[in-house]
Amino acid sequence: MSEPSFLKTLLRRVVQPVDKQRSAARQARNVITLFHALLSERGEVSGAALASEALAAYAALPENALAPFLNLLADEFSPAPAEIATAAANYELDHSAANLIALQQAVESPRQELIRRLNMAPGGTPVLVDIRRRLLRNLKSNPHWLAVDADFEHLLTAWFNRGFLHLKRIDWNTPAIILEKLIHYEAVHEIAGWTDLRRRLAADRRCFAFFHPALPEDPLIFIEVALTNRVSDAVQPLLDPNLVELSPTRADCAIFYSITNCQEGLRGISFGNLLIKQVVFELNREFPRLRTFATLSPVPGFMSWLVETQPQFDTLPQGLDATTLLKSLHDPDWRDKADLAARLKPVLMSLCAWYLTKARKNDEPRDAVARFHLGNGARMERLNWLADTSKRGLRNSAGIMVNYVYHLDDVERNHQAFVAEHRVAASHQITKLARGCGLSRASAK
Amino acid sequence: MSEPSFLKTLLRRVVQPVDKQRSAARQARNVITLFHALLSERGEVSGAALASEALAAYAALPENALAPFLNLLADEFSPAPAEIATAAANYELDHSAANLIALQQAVESPRQELIRRLNMAPGGTPVLVDIRRRLLRNLKSNPHWLAVDADFEHLLTAWFNRGFLHLKRIDWNTPAIILEKLIHYEAVHEIAGWTDLRRRLAADRRCFAFFHPALPEDPLIFIEVALTNRVSDAVQPLLDPNLVELSPTRADCAIFYSITNCQEGLRGISFGNLLIKQVVFELNREFPRLRTFATLSPVPGFMSWLVETQPQFDTLPQGLDATTLLKSLHDPDWRDKADLAARLKPVLMSLCAWYLTKARKNDEPRDAVARFHLGNGARMERLNWLADTSKRGLRNSAGIMVNYVYHLDDVERNHQAFVAEHRVAASHQITKLARGCGLSRASAK
Amino acid sequence: MSEPSFLKTLLRRVVQPVDKQRSAARQARNVITLFHALLSERGEVSGAALASEALAAYAALPENALAPFLNLLADEFSPAPAEIATAAANYELDHSAANLIALQQAVESPRQELIRRLNMAPGGTPVLVDIRRRLLRNLKSNPHWLAVDADFEHLLTAWFNRGFLHLKRIDWNTPAIILEKLIHYEAVHEIAGWTDLRRRLAADRRCFAFFHPALPEDPLIFIEVALTNRVSDAVQPLLDPNLVELSPTRADCAIFYSITNCQEGLRGISFGNLLIKQVVFELNREFPRLRTFATLSPVPGFMSWLVETQPQFDTLPQGLDATTLLKSLHDPDWRDKADLAARLKPVLMSLCAWYLTKARKNDEPRDAVARFHLGNGARMERLNWLADTSKRGLRNSAGIMVNYVYHLDDVERNHQAFVAEHRVAASHQITKLARGCGLSRASAK
Amino acid sequence: MSEPSFLKTLLRRVVQPVDKQRSAARQARNVITLFHALLSERGEVSGAALASEALAAYAALPENALAPFLNLLADEFSPAPAEIATAAANYELDHSAANLIALQQAVESPRQELIRRLNMAPGGTPVLVDIRRRLLRNLKSNPHWLAVDADFEHLLTAWFNRGFLHLKRIDWNTPAIILEKLIHYEAVHEIAGWTDLRRRLAADRRCFAFFHPALPEDPLIFIEVALTNRVSDAVQPLLDPNLVELSPTRADCAIFYSITNCQEGLRGISFGNLLIKQVVFELNREFPRLRTFATLSPVPGFMSWLVETQPQFDTLPQGLDATTLLKSLHDPDWRDKADLAARLKPVLMSLCAWYLTKARKNDEPRDAVARFHLGNGARMERLNWLADTSKRGLRNSAGIMVNYVYHLDDVERNHQAFVAEHRVAASHQITKLARGCGLSRASAK
Repeated sequence: MSEPSFLKTLLRRVVQPVDKQRSAARQARNVITLFHALLSERGEVSGAALASEALAAYAALPENALAPFLNLLADEFSPAPAEIATAAANYELDHSAANLIALQQAVESPRQELIRRLNMAPGGTPVLVDIRRRLLRNLKSNPHWLAVDADFEHLLTAWFNRGFLHLKRIDWNTPAIILEKLIHYEAVHEIAGWTDLRRRLAADRRCFAFFHPALPEDPLIFIEVALTNRVSDAVQPLLDPNLVELSPTRADCAIFYSITNCQEGLRGISFGNLLIKQVVFELNREFPRLRTFATLSPVPGFMSWLVETQPQFDTLPQGLDATTLLKSLHDPDWRDKADLAARLKPVLMSLCAWYLTKARKNDEPRDAVARFHLGNGARMERLNWLADTSKRGLRNSAGIMVNYVYHLDDVERNHQAFVAEHRVAASHQITKLARGCGLSRASAK
Repeated sequence: MSEPSFLKTLLRRVVQPVDKQRSAARQARNVITLFHALLSERGEVSGAALASEALAAYAALPENALAPFLNLLADEFSPAPAEIATAAANYELDHSAANLIALQQAVESPRQELIRRLNMAPGGTPVLVDIRRRLLRNLKSNPHWLAVDADFEHLLTAWFNRGFLHLKRIDWNTPAIILEKLIHYEAVHEIAGWTDLRRRLAADRRCFAFFHPALPEDPLIFIEVALTNRVSDAVQPLLDPNLVELSPTRADCAIFYSITNCQEGLRGISFGNLLIKQVVFELNREFPRLRTFATLSPVPGFMSWLVETQPQFDTLPQGLDATTLLKSLHDPDWRDKADLAARLKPVLMSLCAWYLTKARKNDEPRDAVARFHLGNGARMERLNWLADTSKRGLRNSAGIMVNYVYHLDDVERNHQAFVAEHRVAASHQITKLARGCGLSRASAK
Repeated sequence: MSEPSFLKTLLRRVVQPVDKQRSAARQARNVITLFHALLSERGEVSGAALASEALAAYAALPENALAPFLNLLADEFSPAPAEIATAAANYELDHSAANLIALQQAVESPRQELIRRLNMAPGGTPVLVDIRRRLLRNLKSNPHWLAVDADFEHLLTAWFNRGFLHLKRIDWNTPAIILEKLIHYEAVHEIAGWTDLRRRLAADRRCFAFFHPALPEDPLIFIEVALTNRVSDAVQPLLDPNLVELSPTRADCAIFYSITNCQEGLRGISFGNLLIKQVVFELNREFPRLRTFATLSPVPGFMSWLVETQPQFDTLPQGLDATTLLKSLHDPDWRDKADLAARLKPVLMSLCAWYLTKARKNDEPRDAVARFHLGNGARMERLNWLADTSKRGLRNSAGIMVNYVYHLDDVERNHQAFVAEHRVAASHQITKLARGCGLSRASAK
Repeated sequence: MSEPSFLKTLLRRVVQPVDKQRSAARQARNVITLFHALLSERGEVSGAALASEALAAYAALPENALAPFLNLLADEFSPAPAEIATAAANYELDHSAANLIALQQAVESPRQELIRRLNMAPGGTPVLVDIRRRLLRNLKSNPHWLAVDADFEHLLTAWFNRGFLHLKRIDWNTPAIILEKLIHYEAVHEIAGWTDLRRRLAADRRCFAFFHPALPEDPLIFIEVALTNRVSDAVQPLLDPNLVELSPTRADCAIFYSITNCQEGLRGISFGNLLIKQVVFELNREFPRLRTFATLSPVPGFMSWLVETQPQFDTLPQGLDATTLLKSLHDPDWRDKADLAARLKPVLMSLCAWYLTKARKNDEPRDAVARFHLGNGARMERLNWLADTSKRGLRNSAGIMVNYVYHLDDVERNHQAFVAEHRVAASHQITKLARGCGLSRASAK
């Protein structure tokens, strides 16, 4: 369902009853031979046809041929050390433009030209993105693929430049082939099917995605927005397919409740920052009455931080210690026990505020979602108790969610303060909650 | 007329009453300051807006600020020699993937990231192409701009990859804003106006162009084709606006009589080869009756070769020597004097055949058009006497034109023989003519 | 879900808290007053705005105001009898063109001009189609609405002329808003949801619909086609979402297994005939290998004919009489009892063949589906036993289905023979089966 | 150039060497025979194909076969008088809905069904519009074609209902095939070529047209608008291709300086009224700063009224009498003689104001352009001296032009006053000028 249809077509075209005897290694070598041909003179004149053939051969590789294929790709298309040495020596002697250019050319992998030529095949770009997706999945155990990845990343970064992306609204007029992909990709709050999706695309919702001309049926990233009358403090009501529709012109608030990167193969090329700002701009234009642009975001790392660090409290809030606290949360029904929940709330809210604003990793906020929005220049506005009561929500953050607010006038200043001084823009409520937990930085990571 | 409309818009937006006192140098510095800002942290969060501002400032530069601007661009965005030295030394010691990547990053100019970020501006790509166009025009006298050019070329090559181009048919249904550009760009056989253009887009003609999504109103390259009943031997009849239309389904021949590269700023990124082959494919599909795909091409360098080399003939054809021959051609009415023309024809045809097939420059055919088509795998088929009687045609080649034939089955073989052995694929007629002139290679360049 | 969205929009705009006291009659009168205004001078200058207002008022009518509204529409916009009398008398005296035109104008209802002006409202056409839909539903009990219906039908026939319809392929690239309507409208073989629909739009299927420019999101009629390797003899396998896809280029047969008229309000304006022929044409072009174009059609009236007529058999096939036969079919599990089913098969197939080819109503085949396809020039090719084992299939035709074959070369001849002489084009198999049942026409209707 | 391309295609398809012997009458009969076939049973099943054949045969008729063809069309497809008589008698006896419908059907010409079926041919609509165009050109001398015309008008009125038209902006992005038609059709102020057209489509201009889906490349009517800074008082400056462009956002005035009906075959179906109001609406939305929407209109009938009526003046303005006045205007250079022009101005302005506001024909303003704009609800605002100095302008109205102002709030009231009481909405300036000329209604028509 989610595989690029080009792959499917190729797979169908290729003869099915593969000779089982033929080793995966030989098949991988076969593909690589076509790659070499594409880089040769012959490739210059028969580029697109040869590129199609080569990608079809790749697409037909059995799963166990992937690693041999990537090994060959890593071994056989790297620049020549001797040439690099010469060019570096020349440049050392004379920093002329010509010597710099010669050195730049010497260090560039022939792989880059190979990837450029492969891209000439009709429908080639999604296949190249797919190669990188599979490479990345196994990169940790194959560090020698790093140079291959660097070459892919270099070209994909150029190709997927913001200037070439189109922002498109996704709604019920969108082709099913694209809608189906939203259902498949949605990572934050799973889409239960077409009825669920239909509500998420109703008149009081907006969904936007970035598309690239070479992947016209496959979004790169998409964001889901609810138009509401106040900043939402819980996500389940927003996801309820039976929620009554609000007239969008009456809304004063836009809640970004889900943002999903679709293409694993484009890891490291960031779109989220650009998308949010563009969407704020579009919404502002369509609905001049909107006053607040805020997320309703998860706190994915809170509970694991709590478990891992078991932070020592200077003054124990509510007379609890960490062990007792965590034990309480093992009770699967804790949130239905009004007394228990009432006692836990101030402690957990306080700890979570501390976690979000103070817990660090390499000097940056430990929470990935916080890092993303603060890095974009948003401000941490409000913690919401029992805001995500899904299994995952309870497990990751004891159900707590955060609103990050995007105020376009402050975004640049916040961003710079964050980058330069690691300063976290947070509201008074959150700062106070964090202070209340009685933890000092020294006692926790 | 031909300037990208984005520039015009920018020019209008920029404050008009420029302070005349302010030196061109200061204005150039101003743009460069915005470029630095775009590369800084601030650029990360305000990319597109800052990029628009920077390109608008560039577009508002007076003509005399261009050189100072390009000088700064060359001086201030190059990689740091010290970092290169360190990375080169590390790589020298250990050719690891990580060291290679580090070296690649060290030698890459910050200019490349700058250009990528500038491209985020809406409508930015055509402005970047325009910067390179103006740089190239003055590159010879400013060799230190070479590194700037290399950075532009590197990125433009990635962006204008064949995989991102669309082949579009141009006809009378095409928007005027595009048709107007054909009139402007046509380089080979000037288009005299809308009536002339209309005939070139009639039912027995085809015109195709490559477009890039970022330049939707500006063709990259276009080709003009006449559907005919035999291989055309003269170009003026094809260009006659009053030529009777042929029913295209009855044609058996497609004559490519003009091919024009439109974007000076994309020099070095070749589209012609790809375009011709794609167009042969499209025409084949639309008109299965077509048997021959041939050009009607100029011989731009014949006369200047003749004048320059004044070749010595072993056996003087027709009792002529070079001096007499060239003197005859000084008579502006030579072609109207039947006797004279009749005497000149065998000599000139013979010499021209020799020139096309034997005259070399760096081991390749001296004639640029011949190099292009032979390099694409075409075969030199026929010389045509008095085929282009325009002033330019007579001046450049004494009116002679050539048909190059594209036979898809032979294209790859011809190309490889040409590249590997400099073998020129030529018909018996041409080979015989060349032999007839009694010149040996030794006597001419 | 299926209501034109225009209606919804209108309904929302109209003030909600309707005065409950105000009678339906008064509201209907209100709409009619706007209709009169639209027909007046004022309507000439403020046409579109007034038409929108009038249609919005109509759309806001409560259900119980419909009849009063249609009564007024019938009473107040008819032509004036006195004027008709005068014009008829003049024409009687002199059949001049001018007198004919005057008479034509005298008999034309002002309602027609009213409907034309209402159509000026943006999105007006679907509302007018909707008025007729609701009128038709209650026409039997309100025969005085006939003249209203005639006026609607006259204009809708002009507007929905074949020349204005577009044939569009429906597939997985079609907007969800249209696909959703297929699910809603499909009348013959219910679509169980999006997964079911997706299989029906896979590579070995085709779905085509007619659209009118004024209803861009709402098909008028659609047809579902399966590409297969032989003429299908049962429908459930075709509808199985898990059926393996066939490569469409290998198919030699196109099975039309469902055709659905979507717009009740366009009753009497036939599209089916046109659609089938156009689709045969399109399929032929896309898949030149296709040899057979056939339906897999229900026999909706077989069982009710059998029950109603209890036909007397001359020679009782298989020693059965009608009473026994029908009693057997009351057993809900008859088809699972091999013996019983085996005994029933020859009798029912024989009777069904007789019913399809001989049973008449007003001299035409009694079966509506047979009338439709024979009238289109198709030929009745094959009866299929237990071809539709759904509840409805068993109830209506004891599970029997027919293949009608469209052979374009014979279509015109078959149609004319059918219209002129009521001749039924049937295969030898069916003729023989019909003969075998030993019924004479005399004994059955 | 302006003929629908469908016709051309047809003309090409039809065998060229027409048998010269065959009389035009026989060819006309041939077409009519196909028309009868289309109306028969055969036409029901082979509608579109037969309709195409019939229209192709019509399109191939030589010019001298048109009248015989239209004669047959008038004679052979009229309703049957006997059936009309019966239906009229039945209705006389009983005004039932059924009898009314029967009468309506009896008086409807079979020609209407014929025209509906002809329209099924792909590209049929423009051919039908063309038939009516040619019919109208010769209608005066062939009054028996009136009934044919009535049938065409009836259907074309239904088909070209406002609800089916699209307003499209025409600019330099519009396909050349449409722009070319503007050049061809422009009736008021001739377009001199592509350069002239380009200025009329520049940033400070707007051009809008109505299109019908069945004539996608052919506008029905178009209007040209200049965005200016005050109400224009002369047309030649507006038409100057070298006029400096104004930034459209700074304009406060929209001048409608030309409106052209393109389709003669749609005479009697009015679009102008609708177009102006829709364009005012669109401009208002794009440029909220616009304050005045006014025409700059000719006074086509002023001079011929003056010559014809030679009105007697009660108090002779400026001591002139009509004879002297008209004699002065015979001097072709009068407007260049400052003294003469100065003396003529007050007299002619005064007379023209009288003509526009008081001169009547059937109780309506005698001037056609005045009738049109006043009927649309505009107000006559200002007379402009020497506003159109073209030959035609001087000949028709001694160079005078009028501004009619469209003020949307007054349009309906003006229209009703005009229709009900023939009241002319005119400014104080014009009323005063008219009064000044000392003419009473009694003395002039």
